Amino acid sequence: MSALVGVIMGSKSDWSTLSHTADMLEKLGIPYEVKVVSAHRTPDLLFQYAEEAEGRGIEVIIAGAGGAAHLPGMCAAKTHLPVLGVPVQSSMLSGVDSLLSIVQMPAGIPVATLAIGKAGAINAALLAASILGGKYPKYHVALKDFRREQTDMVLDNPDPREA
Amino acid sequence: MSALVGVIMGSKSDWSTLSHTADMLEKLGIPYEVKVVSAHRTPDLLFQYAEEAEGRGIEVIIAGAGGAAHLPGMCAAKTHLPVLGVPVQSSMLSGVDSLLSIVQMPAGIPVATLAIGKAGAINAALLAASILGGKYPKYHVALKDFRREQTDMVLDNPDPREA
Amino acid sequence: MSALVGVIMGSKSDWSTLSHTADMLEKLGIPYEVKVVSAHRTPDLLFQYAEEAEGRGIEVIIAGAGGAAHLPGMCAAKTHLPVLGVPVQSSMLSGVDSLLSIVQMPAGIPVATLAIGKAGAINAALLAASILGGKYPKYHVALKDFRREQTDMVLDNPDPREA
Amino acid sequence: MSALVGVIMGSKSDWSTLSHTADMLEKLGIPYEVKVVSAHRTPDLLFQYAEEAEGRGIEVIIAGAGGAAHLPGMCAAKTHLPVLGVPVQSSMLSGVDSLLSIVQMPAGIPVATLAIGKAGAINAALLAASILGGKYPKYHVALKDFRREQTDMVLDNPDPREA
Amino acid sequence: MSALVGVIMGSKSDWSTLSHTADMLEKLGIPYEVKVVSAHRTPDLLFQYAEEAEGRGIEVIIAGAGGAAHLPGMCAAKTHLPVLGVPVQSSMLSGVDSLLSIVQMPAGIPVATLAIGKAGAINAALLAASILGGKYPKYHVALKDFRREQTDMVLDNPDPREA
Amino acid sequence: MSALVGVIMGSKSDWSTLSHTADMLEKLGIPYEVKVVSAHRTPDLLFQYAEEAEGRGIEVIIAGAGGAAHLPGMCAAKTHLPVLGVPVQSSMLSGVDSLLSIVQMPAGIPVATLAIGKAGAINAALLAASILGGKYPKYHVALKDFRREQTDMVLDNPDPREA
Amino acid sequence: MSALVGVIMGSKSDWSTLSHTADMLEKLGIPYEVKVVSAHRTPDLLFQYAEEAEGRGIEVIIAGAGGAAHLPGMCAAKTHLPVLGVPVQSSMLSGVDSLLSIVQMPAGIPVATLAIGKAGAINAALLAASILGGKYPKYHVALKDFRREQTDMVLDNPDPREA
Amino acid sequence: MSALVGVIMGSKSDWSTLSHTADMLEKLGIPYEVKVVSAHRTPDLLFQYAEEAEGRGIEVIIAGAGGAAHLPGMCAAKTHLPVLGVPVQSSMLSGVDSLLSIVQMPAGIPVATLAIGKAGAINAALLAASILGGKYPKYHVALKDFRREQTDMVLDNPDPREA
Repeated sequence: MSALVGVIMGSKSDWSTLSHTADMLEKLGIPYEVKVVSAHRTPDLLFQYAEEAEGRGIEVIIAGAGGAAHLPGMCAAKTHLPVLGVPVQSSMLSGVDSLLSIVQMPAGIPVATLAIGKAGAINAALLAASILGGKYPKYHVALKDFRREQTDMVLDNPDPREA
Repeated sequence: MSALVGVIMGSKSDWSTLSHTADMLEKLGIPYEVKVVSAHRTPDLLFQYAEEAEGRGIEVIIAGAGGAAHLPGMCAAKTHLPVLGVPVQSSMLSGVDSLLSIVQMPAGIPVATLAIGKAGAINAALLAASILGGKYPKYHVALKDFRREQTDMVLDNPDPREA
Repeated sequence: MSALVGVIMGSKSDWSTLSHTADMLEKLGIPYEVKVVSAHRTPDLLFQYAEEAEGRGIEVIIAGAGGAAHLPGMCAAKTHLPVLGVPVQSSMLSGVDSLLSIVQMPAGIPVATLAIGKAGAINAALLAASILGGKYPKYHVALKDFRREQTDMVLDNPDPREA
Repeated sequence: MSALVGVIMGSKSDWSTLSHTADMLEKLGIPYEVKVVSAHRTPDLLFQYAEEAEGRGIEVIIAGAGGAAHLPGMCAAKTHLPVLGVPVQSSMLSGVDSLLSIVQMPAGIPVATLAIGKAGAINAALLAASILGGKYPKYHVALKDFRREQTDMVLDNPDPREA
Repeated sequence: MSALVGVIMGSKSDWSTLSHTADMLEKLGIPYEVKVVSAHRTPDLLFQYAEEAEGRGIEVIIAGAGGAAHLPGMCAAKTHLPVLGVPVQSSMLSGVDSLLSIVQMPAGIPVATLAIGKAGAINAALLAASILGGKYPKYHVALKDFRREQTDMVLDNPDPREA
Repeated sequence: MSALVGVIMGSKSDWSTLSHTADMLEKLGIPYEVKVVSAHRTPDLLFQYAEEAEGRGIEVIIAGAGGAAHLPGMCAAKTHLPVLGVPVQSSMLSGVDSLLSIVQMPAGIPVATLAIGKAGAINAALLAASILGGKYPKYHVALKDFRREQTDMVLDNPDPREA
Repeated sequence: MSALVGVIMGSKSDWSTLSHTADMLEKLGIPYEVKVVSAHRTPDLLFQYAEEAEGRGIEVIIAGAGGAAHLPGMCAAKTHLPVLGVPVQSSMLSGVDSLLSIVQMPAGIPVATLAIGKAGAINAALLAASILGGKYPKYHVALKDFRREQTDMVLDNPDPREA
Repeated sequence: MSALVGVIMGSKSDWSTLSHTADMLEKLGIPYEVKVVSAHRTPDLLFQYAEEAEGRGIEVIIAGAGGAAHLPGMCAAKTHLPVLGVPVQSSMLSGVDSLLSIVQMPAGIPVATLAIGKAGAINAALLAASILGGKYPKYHVALKDFRREQTDMVLDNPDPREA
């Protein structure tokens, strides 16, 4: 089945974060594709990817990047699809630079920004499910199942002293 | 027509920010409702609102709050709809507290976070259009029209020295 | 004897911090209970816990959480008991996000916030003793004994060069 | 009736913040006293105040200070009563210095820290009511009344567009 | 004479900052052009501008932007000319977001970043003179003259008490 | 009488801060001189000033500067006298840049750093009095008199509600 | 010979930082004493130490502390001697809390603040030498010798590629 | 061939960062020299270096330093050549102090600031190539070759899941 979610990242080193997005999309049964697209080293590829995504059937783009993270915002500038931004933790500034570079978009071009690092990567997949769920009931069901499961896991293990 | 987007905020004072969301939804022709719902002063109302929103036909929730901004995250914890969070600028810390309280959600419950203040408020409406556009082509068209218009406004006025 | 202090935390991983609270409550002889209650994954449990705590004899609630830490504030929104918040160090931002999410509560609903991490966890127990001590003289005595002991430990070992 | 809450502050200029504490204590019917006590300019007075407070019938101390705010922490070092710290907004650093100087106490001596500025000042009074309420039911009642009132004010005015 | 320096900015509102760049280039006698080019609202124009600049005789590009400031970095990704970035002060975060979004470029694509706001805008022009001065002696002379003049202004007015 | 304290600042605009240093030195009866010396615009003057200060009878140097504040540190690099640094509040970053540029000196060359802005400017004079007091008893007396006076002012006006 | 410099610290764990102060004082031949004095756990000892230091012949006090670091400021409040503050790196916030708690003293009571951690600890000793050097020429000589030595070490090893 | 780029750094420990500058200059075929020049320990050497650089044929200076990093700015104050500043990551504050000390230069004396650490060190070399390329076509060619190569490396390896 053709991909509904496009997961792109600025460099191969971001995969250790974005692989959590892929794992969660997998778990939710949402078809996706993954690709390295660098805003700074391959700007033309980025524009082409963003321009063609909608035509290729992609409905949500998840973009992860670190430092002066321009990938999500520039992708959003070239598409009308929802773009979800995952700030990758930078080695110097704990990801504050990544977060601000992604979230502080000017009026006119939004990026739906998630938390820094692994939590944000997982949540990007869940947000994609929530967005797609409005149109595709099965992803709504998958999301509800996952949410119930994670609630039950807490309820069934209330004692923090047990491993 | 019944509201597709629910715009909630922690207090009346947040309206000076969130009114920009309402204005943009209006411009895009997306039916919406606005309501003050305080996570801390009316927690039961928040839970009721979040639980019932989907049943009432709401498809996207936009929540704005400042300081220790718990409204978007707690709303997200009680619904499967996409929740978009707008950090309202706090008087003491420029909105850094609002931003971090909204964006740094743990794995499992995402909030799609926008920029601090007015830019984020406008962008929440545009992101909602982008999300709804996947299912309702007319909002997709409205978004494209708005985006073309804002691009043309820059192209037609390239000289910064002219007012 | 039934618990006077309820110690709750957002996830099992917070136990490495909150166990210091439990240890100090133990040392001071204050009966307590510990439980994992997640604001985001088990919001209904949180509301139920906060609503019923007073009726069950709990007089102070200590809540520890990290990141967008909504547990202490939402707990405070649903009870009239004093709620003490312990910011758990987050992996990305050193706990600044946890601290601001807990301490910057809006007027109307206070959270008594302690230091980030282990020091805050220990101090939450001491603050609980101080609060309970107003009503129960024995906890006041226990607190005074502990404080005298820790003062003596410094006075008896004034030379930093000795291990 | 003799004061149960002692409200102290580092300088007269802090009164514009701490007057909100006094107003709320007044509203809740809790007897209090206010005094300028400077940790740096009158250290002996601070120690005397902190040492004698309990003997004079004070049960909760609220201390507000700005910048390198040592008043709450040093007060806590000299009493076994609960000390509530209110960070006063500093002119240079928005109160970040005040907040960190108050909240980051080492293990052994807690300060119950509230939000920066007016919100924290109001909440200090509410936290005091919550603490005293465990022993004096009438303050518990006053707190519940205030909380119900503030909840109703939101519920009765749900439309942000109305003044 | 055709422009050697291209001064671009994300929106007309940045002109109040970037006009200082233009004034200094004027003073130094360096031919320049100014244009509004928005990374997010006119991405194709940005790419076209950056790609064609060298061919049109531009030798240095100065790009000013605020918030999630992607203009300088994306421009640098599409040209081999030196790109000088001026962080424009954002209304919410004092320009910290602008600064980090511009300076924290990944290895491979540099942006020569100046100070936030007016000082950075002036310095961008001086840095351009310094860069061009290596090839065009007259700009080197103009820079030396300006520098001597500003030194003399301090030396001739050593008393801060005189207006 | 010849100056014992040299007060230098990076630009005339710093005088609104450093004039508080001059006022306090005046009050304490310590002879001083004031001069604009810019690390960046008049580096040779700075080196000459720092090298010759000791020979001219100066015993303490107070240097105020803002932004990338290099004046105190470079002055300290060229003298063996105690150099006291006053971070002047910058318009963009509240003086955080000034503070870090002054205080974070590497091992080998200390700068005695005071608080940002007016408080630091006043305190630089008091610290100078304290340093000079070790050698000149009259300044020690002047300092003690001032300190007693400021203590009395608090003790005599304990009620914050009185103007 | 009796101590001229008193080196105090908030806890034994600070010795790993303050031992660098002791080493440098040793190297410079300045007699000193070291002692653990906790502002929070032994406030009376701190006041006694600060009050008696001058009478015992101490001329400079060096105080190191971390987190909500009140030791240097409270020491300064109880003595007229110069107090030098060394911010010890805190485990959670990299020492930003320590730095701000020490440096942001209100007008009236200065603390001469050094860099965070080891560099600041070494520099506190060098600053003490500079202060004492005004009265005792031999420490001035020792400081000049050390400074010349460290300059020569750089001049003699200009190539960074050699170990 | 005589050096066109002078690479200086504050201490030998900065070499682990600045060696990346040297490696990239090497790769681009640009002749350079490296030297330890400390602003604080060898201020006279710094002034001599900066003054003589232009006469010795240096056309670009790259200066790396950490903490209160005064090397790039003071170097810029003594030369008319372009000075490129590389903030070296400090052990305490992640390099924020280094970055602000370098980038926040006052109007009049620019420093072209790069990213903190390794990325900035590599980019300083690339920026030097871009600056020199305006005058020396062969460095322009070398830069274009490097840029094409790095683009191809991304294009040829689009799958992040492959090592």
